[in-house]
Amino acid sequence: MTTSHGLFHDRAVFPRGFRCASRNCGLKPSAKDLALFVSDVEAAAAAVFTKNHFPGAPVILGRETIRGGRLRVVVVNSKVSNVATGARGVENARRMAAAAATEVGTTADQVLVSSTGVIGVPLPIEIIERGLQGMSADLQSDPLVGAEGIMTTDTHPKALSASVGDATITWVAKGSGMIEPNMATMLVYIFTDAAIDAQTLDRLLRQSVHVSFNMLSVDSDTSTSDTCAILANGLAGAVDQRAFAEVLTAGCVRMTEMLARDGEGAEHLLRVTVRGAVDEGEARRVAKSLVNSPLIKTMVHGADPNVGRLLMAVGKCFECTVAPEHTDAWINGYVVVRNGTRLDFDDAIVRKALGGEVVDLEVALGVGNGSATAYGCDLTKGYIDENAAYYSS
Amino acid sequence: MTTSHGLFHDRAVFPRGFRCASRNCGLKPSAKDLALFVSDVEAAAAAVFTKNHFPGAPVILGRETIRGGRLRVVVVNSKVSNVATGARGVENARRMAAAAATEVGTTADQVLVSSTGVIGVPLPIEIIERGLQGMSADLQSDPLVGAEGIMTTDTHPKALSASVGDATITWVAKGSGMIEPNMATMLVYIFTDAAIDAQTLDRLLRQSVHVSFNMLSVDSDTSTSDTCAILANGLAGAVDQRAFAEVLTAGCVRMTEMLARDGEGAEHLLRVTVRGAVDEGEARRVAKSLVNSPLIKTMVHGADPNVGRLLMAVGKCFECTVAPEHTDAWINGYVVVRNGTRLDFDDAIVRKALGGEVVDLEVALGVGNGSATAYGCDLTKGYIDENAAYYSS
Repeated sequence: MTTSHGLFHDRAVFPRGFRCASRNCGLKPSAKDLALFVSDVEAAAAAVFTKNHFPGAPVILGRETIRGGRLRVVVVNSKVSNVATGARGVENARRMAAAAATEVGTTADQVLVSSTGVIGVPLPIEIIERGLQGMSADLQSDPLVGAEGIMTTDTHPKALSASVGDATITWVAKGSGMIEPNMATMLVYIFTDAAIDAQTLDRLLRQSVHVSFNMLSVDSDTSTSDTCAILANGLAGAVDQRAFAEVLTAGCVRMTEMLARDGEGAEHLLRVTVRGAVDEGEARRVAKSLVNSPLIKTMVHGADPNVGRLLMAVGKCFECTVAPEHTDAWINGYVVVRNGTRLDFDDAIVRKALGGEVVDLEVALGVGNGSATAYGCDLTKGYIDENAAYYSS
Repeated sequence: MTTSHGLFHDRAVFPRGFRCASRNCGLKPSAKDLALFVSDVEAAAAAVFTKNHFPGAPVILGRETIRGGRLRVVVVNSKVSNVATGARGVENARRMAAAAATEVGTTADQVLVSSTGVIGVPLPIEIIERGLQGMSADLQSDPLVGAEGIMTTDTHPKALSASVGDATITWVAKGSGMIEPNMATMLVYIFTDAAIDAQTLDRLLRQSVHVSFNMLSVDSDTSTSDTCAILANGLAGAVDQRAFAEVLTAGCVRMTEMLARDGEGAEHLLRVTVRGAVDEGEARRVAKSLVNSPLIKTMVHGADPNVGRLLMAVGKCFECTVAPEHTDAWINGYVVVRNGTRLDFDDAIVRKALGGEVVDLEVALGVGNGSATAYGCDLTKGYIDENAAYYSS
């Protein structure tokens, strides 16, 4: 899926010097399960990873690799995540980096490895090594081809492009379940031909992730494989840094929305904005409480105007400052709570507001100036179907 | 539902001097929606309430009432919770206490009021006042009759009895959704004829609630109406306090399990025990993380041996001390993770273990001596059916 959303190109394209390929190497029956992203020249690079205590082997290796601040290759397999696989798992991640380096003609320290899929199953490394052979001959210019190779339960490949001056930024991502990232999210790769040093990239990436992927929650579960990396190969020369930072954040937010909308079983994008909190930290906490509440998610799913649940979910943030008498709430712009009391509104209007594909919930706490927006989706039977048999299917 | 579980009576009975009645007063189409619990003599009393920032009007009034440490009556309506209803809501709760006091022949300060049901709808107080008239003539000795009057989405009324020396303790409760209590839970009333002063009751109640109702989570949502009260009318005289405390805790745990098993849509009781944490607080946090994880709840629902999810849910407790290499895990006694690595076990055995009506997950963190057990249930399509149209149905 590409998108035209003002700032963004109608169709995702790669910045100068980036290409990708994907194929089925035999981890899945027939769908693509291996993707290779390559920069023709060495790129400055930064990345953030999951804070889960049980990071996958690729995350353990990735933290080491990214210290160099230079990358040429990202190689990703889907179906098996290489998590909870012990020392052998890390060894297999290294072999995967080495195989990709050989195929592209570089060294393993220039290769970022990711694996996504079932936790706790050994990585079939020989299959991947064989699969990588000859893959550089397939490299081409459509980012969606690479996005296809990294999908698990996603219903469509996800890529997005925008311009900053002469440069292009392109996002390629996957992820629709086990998503409440912290530090980074799922798998997101950002490619640009702007010239930016690794240290600056790292700072800009963290700023953007803070308000986008780290405010996304499909199901409150934090993956062991979350990775968000950015590569800047400099082929377009220098750009205005402020403009670059703005576009980078806008694209991360847009990709966050695409991921939320494609949450497992999701039928609605849920956006929760909290204003008037004591500080940004509390605004984030309250927004997350709402976006994660199963009772709010099912209310949105059923377009049931049970708006008291908004107050319930604000009120369960025990450590946050909340003044019931100053609390107001809106659903898609329609006021439903004023001064902590549910208004006597027309159910039909609220039911209609909840029926939109995008549902915006807004809460004003009236106790300060902190604000934040969180992104999620409704909770449906589709989520249960997908997750009651993920391992077995 | 009554239970024979060693300690507990085959059938719930009231302690000496307690009776109850319930009826349909017109809040629901035909099901019972009003319950009255009465002690023939004044009882020492203690209670704990929700910590939600938006407590219902009955909770606001109840906090005031319980300060006296004496109660004779508990009156409860279901269908409408009288939450987010402003000053008028508190006035209505007072009118409900006064009406029950008049009916029983006592004063309003001896009456604990609870309301449970939809949030944000004004309490139809005239209907309740009319409904209470003549209700004391219906008072009888079966606790399940009272339990019926307080049900919302529960599939069956819940009561339980046990003996301590000559005295009896009886629990009556409701609740199956919006359940992650904090300080107290849903609606639980405990009646005993043991002679115990209010201050001691308060201490013993808090101890018991800490390891039982406060470790229960159906869906991580904290109700605005949670109330747990205990009344001791002394008609059986003094009992051994240690024995009383033990039975009180055992009954609270047993009732916690009954509530979890009857969680909205639930098909399994899920018990998560965490051992070897740095302290009890971290053990509680990790146990709650597992019991609340949608991916673990759906894994149990589908009996899908996707045990890597256990590590994911331990690992997302960012602030807890976790040493992957010392982490072990069991499903119904069958070891599936050793030293942070998933074992190469027989899927069929684990699938069978997950298929039991009670699923025990155990995690040993190996970093200290803290332990805790949390109680919950699986996540099913039934939960979504109930909550996508709770207000509308």
